[in-house]
Formats: sequence, structure tokens, C-alpha cells
Amino acid sequence: MAKYTIGIDFGSLSGRAVLTDVENGQEVASATLDYPHAVMDTHLAATGAPLPPDFALQDPADYLLVLEKTIPQLLADSGVSPAEVVAIALDFTCCTLLPVDADGTPLCFDPTFSQEPLAYTLLWKHHAAQKYANRMNEIARQRGEKFLDQVGGVISSEWMFPKIYQVLAEAPAVYEAARYFIEAGDWVTWMLCGEQHRGYQYAAYKSLYVKGVGYPSRAYFAAVDPRLANVVADKLTEPDCMLGDKVGELTAEMAKRIGLCAGIAVGASAPDAHIAALALGVKKEGDMFGVLGTSGCFFLVGSEGKVVPGTCGTVADGVLPGLYGFESGLCCLGDHFAFAAEKLTSAAYQKEAETRGIPMIKLLIEKAAQKKPGESGVIALNWFNGNRSTLVNSDLSGLFVGMTLTTAPEDLMRALIEATAFGWRNIVDAYENCGVPVKQIIASGGIARKDPFTMQLYADVLGKEIAITETAQAPAASAAIGAAVAGGYYSDLIAASDRMASKKDRVFRPIPAHTAIYDRLYAEYKLLHDYFGKGGNDVMRRLRHLAAQQK
Amino acid sequence: MAKYTIGIDFGSLSGRAVLTDVENGQEVASATLDYPHAVMDTHLAATGAPLPPDFALQDPADYLLVLEKTIPQLLADSGVSPAEVVAIALDFTCCTLLPVDADGTPLCFDPTFSQEPLAYTLLWKHHAAQKYANRMNEIARQRGEKFLDQVGGVISSEWMFPKIYQVLAEAPAVYEAARYFIEAGDWVTWMLCGEQHRGYQYAAYKSLYVKGVGYPSRAYFAAVDPRLANVVADKLTEPDCMLGDKVGELTAEMAKRIGLCAGIAVGASAPDAHIAALALGVKKEGDMFGVLGTSGCFFLVGSEGKVVPGTCGTVADGVLPGLYGFESGLCCLGDHFAFAAEKLTSAAYQKEAETRGIPMIKLLIEKAAQKKPGESGVIALNWFNGNRSTLVNSDLSGLFVGMTLTTAPEDLMRALIEATAFGWRNIVDAYENCGVPVKQIIASGGIARKDPFTMQLYADVLGKEIAITETAQAPAASAAIGAAVAGGYYSDLIAASDRMASKKDRVFRPIPAHTAIYDRLYAEYKLLHDYFGKGGNDVMRRLRHLAAQQK
Repeated sequence: MAKYTIGIDFGSLSGRAVLTDVENGQEVASATLDYPHAVMDTHLAATGAPLPPDFALQDPADYLLVLEKTIPQLLADSGVSPAEVVAIALDFTCCTLLPVDADGTPLCFDPTFSQEPLAYTLLWKHHAAQKYANRMNEIARQRGEKFLDQVGGVISSEWMFPKIYQVLAEAPAVYEAARYFIEAGDWVTWMLCGEQHRGYQYAAYKSLYVKGVGYPSRAYFAAVDPRLANVVADKLTEPDCMLGDKVGELTAEMAKRIGLCAGIAVGASAPDAHIAALALGVKKEGDMFGVLGTSGCFFLVGSEGKVVPGTCGTVADGVLPGLYGFESGLCCLGDHFAFAAEKLTSAAYQKEAETRGIPMIKLLIEKAAQKKPGESGVIALNWFNGNRSTLVNSDLSGLFVGMTLTTAPEDLMRALIEATAFGWRNIVDAYENCGVPVKQIIASGGIARKDPFTMQLYADVLGKEIAITETAQAPAASAAIGAAVAGGYYSDLIAASDRMASKKDRVFRPIPAHTAIYDRLYAEYKLLHDYFGKGGNDVMRRLRHLAAQQK
Repeated sequence: MAKYTIGIDFGSLSGRAVLTDVENGQEVASATLDYPHAVMDTHLAATGAPLPPDFALQDPADYLLVLEKTIPQLLADSGVSPAEVVAIALDFTCCTLLPVDADGTPLCFDPTFSQEPLAYTLLWKHHAAQKYANRMNEIARQRGEKFLDQVGGVISSEWMFPKIYQVLAEAPAVYEAARYFIEAGDWVTWMLCGEQHRGYQYAAYKSLYVKGVGYPSRAYFAAVDPRLANVVADKLTEPDCMLGDKVGELTAEMAKRIGLCAGIAVGASAPDAHIAALALGVKKEGDMFGVLGTSGCFFLVGSEGKVVPGTCGTVADGVLPGLYGFESGLCCLGDHFAFAAEKLTSAAYQKEAETRGIPMIKLLIEKAAQKKPGESGVIALNWFNGNRSTLVNSDLSGLFVGMTLTTAPEDLMRALIEATAFGWRNIVDAYENCGVPVKQIIASGGIARKDPFTMQLYADVLGKEIAITETAQAPAASAAIGAAVAGGYYSDLIAASDRMASKKDRVFRPIPAHTAIYDRLYAEYKLLHDYFGKGGNDVMRRLRHLAAQQK
């Protein structure tokens, strides 16, 4: 009898499950469910009430629905029987947190709190906690806190403590009632096996947890805000597991709900993008992999724990055991392209897309591809959702410069694609300037697989080869690899990855003539990047604050 | 028998004729013809060949068609007989020039030159002569040429000599074959009366002609380029008329073509926007009037010939006899809004506009109007067609800053409207900083009459009242006033304007709460304006040049 594991990737808009052959990693089925509540960023579904700026919420009921819908579909589509599925594990966006009571029930399920936005899941891209992050950074710098080294020097508003601090400050009753603030990935794992465990990588990357040291001190939190002094003791647990660890067994109740056998191994959960390394075959120092989706995450494997300012951190065992994991990212990658396709287009193009039966995004990228580098004359800054690396500032916003009356929608689309490329190159530069080499680049995610124009452009701008792997679901496939280890079928993650990782099936090589032009455009990007991002002109912050006041 | 005059306004995209009662200025009929060739800015119609960047050409055959189509229509619509029409005059965009032979035939009508773009009319917004303007400015500054005072210190690429210099450099055969380079307004007048005359205001505003001094010297032109030394003697005539002067009588041949009586007075032609003063009732020091159409022209009447850097000039008798006329402008005003409506919109909005049967521009402005000042968080620079005042640089381009993923198309539309308001305020500031007061503002043009949201916003941003006049056709109505003087029915323009000018029928008053927010946004605009416009970052010029290379 063949053996299979299930890996589930909980993304920003949907949950994607894969059923994987333990022997060779082959995906025998996959299934996706779009979250019914998607991302709540304008209105709270439960009440219809408008949300403040920069909120991004989810309803955790959607995650359970993903389990209930996708797993039976995997079995139905593949013909695999429940008895052949030997383990399950999942990955999740992070920091995506929710407040729960002692038995794990989300506070937003409680009618007392169901009208309170901050009782829901705060999605990774909930950016309304910037002022709390600012306060935490100020105090950390004043106190010379060592944990800043691990996180690249700046605490992001996307991370756990600024978000918890926002809940404390703006919805104190929720803070009071919450027994735990928990990563959504750990919460779903809890629902599967009936036990709470805290994934090490979530804590290390997004909760300032340093291996061998722990969370920041009580004294630090007390200095930030006395009400926050006991946050760790009162509201969190210590990390106790990593991907590949078995954290429990599927409960009978959940087994019934999702159609698997009770008692199979449940593996530890881990951050979605970080673990994609396993399925992508990332193994050694200098390997960088990018997960290119709505946002862009870039992970680099290094042999030394160097501090690289403006990146999201350097974490021991962060990507692969025994090596250092460096993380950095663009808050917004494909989201830019979707924005342009939705809002920056013409009636004539709408008609053309309808006539040809293709989505607008495809039409615009096709038209953009017909131009030469530099021909549009437009440059953008890719900060429509703030800047994660290397400025770590969610108050930043987007910019277009160079438009004339003849500028076409595809010129703006292309400028946004190029801007994400420049943002990526800026990250590579940050590592290399600190002596952390980037030797090989592997890309995954929807854009890597479906958009050769953009991938060629990335290779041109980076001036480096980019390999693409065949898997459509690197995070989910990696979760399935983790499940295989948790289930005892491999001794460790590297051994499992050797057998189960995807094959690289395409390489984009830089075109020197393009790279030469992009070197010039990148120099322009850097000028604008530094002027708007490093204090030359704080107009973006001022505009954002004025807009928030006027809403 | 009632007496009527005809005024014709030749705009960027159409010719608009009005039939006006000489007694009281009442418009009894109006007729418009869109130029069949519109503006040729991507391809030359005759050959289909693509045009270089920044070209904007017209076919002079279109102007004759306007005469042939609109004048008979005026008579047909009104029932006025040809015998009741006593005079005709016209106004034109400027500098809009064409090369002609000795008898006035445009070179582009000649098969030898019909495939040569630079043998056609170079429309005012033909911006491809910037490098020639740069050279002329450099030499003028080196030589300390006094004529720079009249033009605000900088020669614009839109004016006559940079354009002629471009023809000389890039199409020397056209330069050689041209007996004259002539303003299109003077050319159409020539076609009406059979005699060539040169309008003083065209020469003063766009050809560096200083009253009492003349054109720049031969020595200056020789220093710019030896081939250009004799340009004045060889290719131009001296100005010899102003609006209100009779320059000749309608020829029998043209009378037949357009259905009027031969021998009626033909009045001198004048620049479209400058003369609008007459129909708008502009009379005294401190009166500013704005003509708000595809571009924005702002004229100010002053009692002293002060030098105001960055404005387009200070011209004795430039707007009204006996007073100084100051001119400044925004290269692109309504063109911005049309751009946004055409290219920065969504499928959902297209559907909404179609369902409601309204144009996209109306829908976007309606949605923009529902927001508060500052609420969108986006600021623009209104330089999509370069900057005329106060930077005088057609290499500048557009900018948007402050976008997030929730930015909507109406936010970009509103930012563009606001940017034109800031551009206007910057011009008012330039005058007031030089001690030239702006006391009363009168607005005309399509936007003034049709777009109350934008007019209120202008009042809010300027912090000044703006009066709107009822005429839809201030330039054409002013041309008709000029014709009435040319026909001998009034002693001078002021006397004619007293009887024939439009009434003011609406005043927009600033809303103090809006003005307070706009003061803050204007400060942001100024920061960006100075950074991108005054050498802080020349990225716009570099992007434009790279784009031109790559095309």
C-alpha cells in the first residue's frame, strides 16, 4: 500500500492542500478553497461596519472550512483511501494572530466580541499597528536591546507584539479576555491534534524570540507600556516544535469532520514561505529562494549569523537545521499587478480583453512585454502596501513618476513589475554589502510559474540566473514533507527533501543589453527610494496621516 | 437691419464659430467642427509613419474646412442673411506655426513635402524642440539678452524660434523651401483677405518681439547657429496689426467658399486665450482671467511692466491697450482629467458609467467629489505635458505619490484636479511675490462652465473667489468683438467690450476648512515641485531621454 501525506498551505486568500506520495514527493492531488470572508479590509462582515485604514482581518472559521472541504476533495479526486494517508501538517502566513480562550476558541466566535474587529484574526498585512511598532522600536533602541540584531534592527508593524499592543490599547476587553494570542498556524494545528504547540520559526521570525535567549524581557515590555509588562507570561507559550516534529495525533472528532483516520501523526506547523525551501531543494549557503505571490518573500541560507540591516532577521535553524536563515520581503508584489489590472486600465482594453476572453492582467502584461526596457519612461516605487525590506516602514506608499499624456496602462503595469524587481535587487544588494553571498536563485509561487515575462525581467534586473521549480505549491509540498518526517518516514528534513523535493525545470538567464538599461533605471529607483524612504521627504507618512484624519 | 459679426476660435481639436449681435454681444448662433486630422502625435496621417516623441502636428486643410462648414451653419441655424454679417475675425492657438511658400500655400500641400512631418503645422504643444530651446536659452543668457525680461527669463520650446530651429536642423529642405514661417492664425486671416499680416500679440508673446525694439538681433541668432543668422529677414515679417484692426476685405473667392459677402471687413487675428479678456469683461489692474480647457492659460492685467520669473512674459498692450499683459499657463489641465478617465479606471466603473449613460470623466469626478480634501492620501504633479509656468521645462513629466492598494481611480482623478489647482496657485504666488497683485479672478472655458466641483476646489486651493461668465466661447466671442471694431462699429476694443462682453453669473467662494487642508497639501506639492523641478532630482529628464532613445 502506497503512503501519502497531506500538506496544507494557508495563504492570504485561500487554503491549498496537496496529497503527496511519501516515496517520491509526487503531488497526486491538490485542492483549493477561497476563504469565504477573504480579507476584510474595508468592512467587518459580521456587522457591515467600516474598518479603519490599514486593517486586514480574517475570520478563523474559514480555516476550518478549508480542512473540511479540501481534504475530502483530495481523496475523492485521487482515489486514495483515508487509510493510506499517514500524516498531516500545515503552513500558514505569519504573523497572522488571533486571540483565543483557554480551550482555543477564538474570541470572535463569542457573541460578546463578534462585533469587535480586533477580536478577529489580524492578518500578516494588517498594517494598523505602525504607531505601536514605532514605540517598541524607540524603546528597544534606547535600551540597546540585543534582540534587534536578529530582526535586522527594526521591529515591523506586521509582527506579533505590535499587533498585541494595538489590541491592548484599542480593544482592552479583548486583551483581557484572551487567554492566548496565537499564530493562526499553531491554532489550526491545535484544532487538528487537540494540543497547543508553538512553532519555533513563527516565534523566531515574528515574535522576537531568540534561540537560547527567549522572548524580550519583562523589563523591556514594562518600559514600552506598563500594561504590557507580563504579556509573555500571561498571553504566550514558549516555542516547543519545528517543522518535521510530531506534535500530536489527529483527534477523533476532527478525523470525522475531515474524513481522515483518527490517530495519524500531526506535524508541527511553520511559516508558509520559510519552509518552501524544502520542496524547492534549497540546501546550502548562498541559496536564495523567492516566493512570488501577492507579496514577495526572499529567504537566503547562510553559514554565519551576520546582521543585515533592514532585513527581517537572521535566525538560527530558521530555514534549514544547522544553517542560518535570512528573511526579507516585499509587502506587495503580485498585489501591485492586480491593482493595476483592476484600477489602471481603459475602456478600450476592457473591450479587447473581453473579446479575447483573457483577464486584464494578462492583456496588460502582454502589451507591456512588447516594449523595451526604459521605453515607457515611467518608474514606480513598489510600496503600495508599505516597505518591509530594507526600510521596514508601513507608512510608505506608492509612487509613479515620468508619465506623459501618451503613457498607456501597460506602461504603469510594467513600471510596477520593474519596481518589484528593483525592490528585490535592493534586498540582494543589502546581503551582498554585508558579506552574505547570494549564489543561486530559485523562484516559486504563482508568478514564477505563470509569468515568464516578469521572470525574465527579474533575471535582467538582478543580473543573475533564476531557476523555476515545477511545483505549483511549494509551501504545501513542504508541509507534506514535514508531515512525512513527523510521521516517521524519514529521519530528518534534509533526507526527506532529497527524495521529495521538486525538480527545477526552467532557468531564466539575464539578457546583457537589458541589464545595462536596468542598471540605469535601478540607479534612478535608488535615488527615489532613498529620498522618500530615508527621510529626504516624509511626504508619504504625512499624506497617510492626513488621510487617516480625514476619513 | 440688425448687424452681426463672426468670430472664430481655432482650438487644439476643433474650430468654434459664433455669430454675434454687434449691438449687445448676444451670441445668436454657434457652430463647431472637429478637425478631421485632430492632433497628429503618434502617426502622420498622410503616410501612416510613426512620429518621434513629443511631436504634435496638424493639417492646415482642416482650418479651411472649419470656415467652409461652420459659417454656413451659423447662417442656417440663425436665419441671419449673409448681407447682415458685417465683419469677421478669428483667434488661434499659438505658437502654432506652419511653413508656407510666397503665395501662402502650406508646404505640406506640396507632394514634395507631404511625407515630411516638419512641413505640417507644428501645434503649440509640439514639444520636440526642447533641445533647440535649451541652446537658445544658453546663448541668450551668455549674451545677457534683454528680451529675456519680457518672456520671464526662459524661452519655451513651444515658441516660434525653437520650432523653426528644429525645422532647420531636422528638415533643412523644408526650411530652405519655406518663404515664410507663419502663425496659423495669421495664415487663415491671409486666406480670408488675400493679404499677409502679422499679429502683434503673436509676435510679442511667442516670437520674442519687443514693442519698440523688434525681434532679437541677427548677432544673437548667428551665435545660436550661423545657419539661423538671417531667420528674421528671410522667413518672417514685422508685426503690423492688433485685434480690432481691419487688415483687409473678404476676397470674392473665399466669400463664395464660405457663403458670406465679398468685401466685408476682415479683422486682425490674435492669440486665442489672450484676447478672451474682452468677452470676459477684464478691464483693470489686478484682474486675472483663466481659460480652463485642455490646458490652462492665465492672464493678468498690470499697470507696470515688472519682470516675473518663470511666467511667459510681460507684454505692453498684450491683453488690453495701455496696460501690461502678463501670461502664464499650465501645459495640461483638462488633458489630465481626460487622461485619467481614459486610462486610469476599472471594469466596474466602466460598467457603472455605461449603465448610467454618463461619461467616465463625469463618474470619476462625481466619486472624487464624495471625498474630503486630503482623504485620498495621493498627491500629483501636473506635468504630464511638461511645465510652462513657472519652471518652463517641457522635459518634466507627471508624478503620483501616496497610493496604497485601496487607492481608487477617483483618488487619482482628484489628485490630478488638485495638482492643477496647486499649479495655478503657484502662478498666483509668483506674481504676488513680485509685487504684481491678483485682485479678481474670472474663469472661462469648458471646465469653468461645466465642472462646479473643480471650480470650487480651485477657489478652495487659491483661497480666492472665482467668478464664472456665461459665455461658452470667450475667445470666439472676443474675436467677434474684435471684428466689430475692425468693421468700424465701435471706436475701440474697450468701448466694444463695454457693450458686448458676457455677464458674470456665478461666483465660487473658498470654504475655509478646505483651504486649511489645502494649505498643507500645497506645501507638500511645493516640496515635490522644487525637488523634481528645480534640480533636486533630474529623473524626469533622464527618463524622458532614455525613453526617446529606446523608442
